[in-house]
Amino acid sequence: MTNEQLKQPVTVLGLGFMGTALADAFRRAGHPTTVWTRSNRPGPDGTTAATSAAAAVAASPLVVACVLDYGAVDDVLVGDLAGKTIVNLTTGTPEQAREFAARIAARGARYLDGGIMTEPSGIGDPTSMILFSGSADAYEAHREAFEVLGDARFLGADAGLAALYDTALLGIMYSAMTGYLQATALVGREEVSAVRFTPLAQELLGATAAFLGPIAEQVDSGDHTSRSARLDMQLSAADHLIHAGQVRGVDTTVLEHVKSLMERAVADGHGGSDFGAVIEQLRTV
Amino acid sequence: MTNEQLKQPVTVLGLGFMGTALADAFRRAGHPTTVWTRSNRPGPDGTTAATSAAAAVAASPLVVACVLDYGAVDDVLVGDLAGKTIVNLTTGTPEQAREFAARIAARGARYLDGGIMTEPSGIGDPTSMILFSGSADAYEAHREAFEVLGDARFLGADAGLAALYDTALLGIMYSAMTGYLQATALVGREEVSAVRFTPLAQELLGATAAFLGPIAEQVDSGDHTSRSARLDMQLSAADHLIHAGQVRGVDTTVLEHVKSLMERAVADGHGGSDFGAVIEQLRTV
Ligand SMILES: NC(=O)c1ccc[n+]([C@@H]2O[C@H](COP(=O)([O-])OP(=O)(O)OC[C@H]3O[C@@H](n4cnc5c(N)ncnc54)[C@H](OP(=O)(O)O)[C@@H]3O)[C@@H](O)[C@H]2O)c1
Ligand SMILES: NC(=O)c1ccc[n+]([C@@H]2O[C@H](COP(=O)([O-])OP(=O)(O)OC[C@H]3O[C@@H](n4cnc5c(N)ncnc54)[C@H](OP(=O)(O)O)[C@@H]3O)[C@@H](O)[C@H]2O)c1
Repeated sequence: MTNEQLKQPVTVLGLGFMGTALADAFRRAGHPTTVWTRSNRPGPDGTTAATSAAAAVAASPLVVACVLDYGAVDDVLVGDLAGKTIVNLTTGTPEQAREFAARIAARGARYLDGGIMTEPSGIGDPTSMILFSGSADAYEAHREAFEVLGDARFLGADAGLAALYDTALLGIMYSAMTGYLQATALVGREEVSAVRFTPLAQELLGATAAFLGPIAEQVDSGDHTSRSARLDMQLSAADHLIHAGQVRGVDTTVLEHVKSLMERAVADGHGGSDFGAVIEQLRTV
Repeated sequence: MTNEQLKQPVTVLGLGFMGTALADAFRRAGHPTTVWTRSNRPGPDGTTAATSAAAAVAASPLVVACVLDYGAVDDVLVGDLAGKTIVNLTTGTPEQAREFAARIAARGARYLDGGIMTEPSGIGDPTSMILFSGSADAYEAHREAFEVLGDARFLGADAGLAALYDTALLGIMYSAMTGYLQATALVGREEVSAVRFTPLAQELLGATAAFLGPIAEQVDSGDHTSRSARLDMQLSAADHLIHAGQVRGVDTTVLEHVKSLMERAVADGHGGSDFGAVIEQLRTV
């Protein structure tokens, strides 16, 4: 018996950047890997291209879909699913994940929804966060295969949890990346290259991550009394960031929004609070 | 001769959260430390409170100001500055820093502007980034004192450089922190506490930092051809983030702005580009 024969067969539906990385990681780990994508492109070397979506689904007890959106998942998850484990690593909302879980269960399969918190190049790196939720039995049955992809974590039986965390975390990523591009455009106006500036931006994100621990405790307790940076002081700093961007012709929309949130928090009596007090302005109902 | 006598005397003007941390770090490192703040509060144990701003300035060859804004620096930097080194660690714009450098030079002193990229609790930690620019001679003369505060770095003779980097990096911090609070509000709607969610948010910021290296190269080369996550795919993901926030009554202003930037980039032909292509939409002139 070869190593390959010991591993569960896996099917990957979708061969975009991410599906290709997933299929390649399974294949490298010794899983017999069947692939299919709408455009009938072949998959990475060593994988087997099915001739139809239904044939791909039929080929393995574990079927992983990673396509554009949940509408596309509907298009590719065809045929008999009974007894299978369906894993949907396509990005969507918690609402979509919960609705999908019910429909897949009705087709006799176990369902796991997932969120991939890395880029395709991070697939196979044991530190890359990959979130799962839904059928605990299915997770346990295939845990080894999921760990091939990265640092797999099971969040709970509610299939919507992975998408809840995924949408939350992606929101942080897009906010941070937009801030990064705005900053890079700013320093670029004075001939500082992106490659020169970026190591400092990376360090700054590390420092920012460290700030979040104390903020989290303040958010949970509701006591935001400043121990490090008063909001009224930060409001003055915000003006400088906006000014620096405006005189250099760099979009400051995000910073103006942050300033208006801080202004509202200060008007609500939070001049002597730390930044976490702004969370109250983000709850719109 | 005691260790203390070997160290340069330092004056710290301003005893808010940050000035207090700076004075305490100098004092702990053995610098005879004179302090003064507008409200005449005493400084940390072991520092000497001057009776006036002018007396505080006169007490040391190295004078560090860290107050609310540059207007307040003007108020505290009184008396004869000739022959001294003035270090302004107050947050401001590059424009303010350059104007200040000229005025301080006219008063016969050497000027350094700075940006503190940590919280007060990070002062004294050798990994905390602290940026300086302005007089290279002054930086070399007092480098040891600056290294007491953290990982001190000299950016160049243009006094505005530290503020340029500072405003850029703070823009990233505020974007990321606002994204974090929005995400924390989102998961909070489903009873996930901030303390439970935050370790994942911290990891995500680490992953995001790693994504910036390839983006920086694309920004500098101008070739954004996607190697990992196409903008047209990301535009679909952005909708999910906005939906997840909206149905939970969480502010999505930043995400809607990011989506509109991506839409404009895609309309400009960047559907097959990576996220860095959005930088072109952030240059408003
Ligand atoms: N790339 C990343 O960094 C990343 C990170 C985390 C999560 N994700 C998520 O992973 C999923 C895939 O991303 P990706 O980067 O691989 O995207 P991609 O490179 O744009 O590929 C999109 C995939 O979806 C398929 N597809 C699109 N519309 C379809 C339809 N109507 N019916 C069937 N198939 C359809 C495409 O098939 P053909 O190519 O055969 O036409 C292709 O396989 C997305 O939900 C994304 O949010 C991506
Ligand atoms: N806290 C942080 O995390 C942090 C991080 C990086 C940079 N910084 C920068 O450090 C500077 C100080 O921040 P902080 O946190 O120490 O602020 P803070 O706690 O609010 O203290 C403000 C300081 O400014 C003084 N001040 C205000 N208006 C003044 C005026 N018109 N004339 C003279 N003094 C005046 C105050 O004096 P009195 O208290 O005596 O009235 C106090 O010493 C700011 O520029 C800030 O952007 C702070």
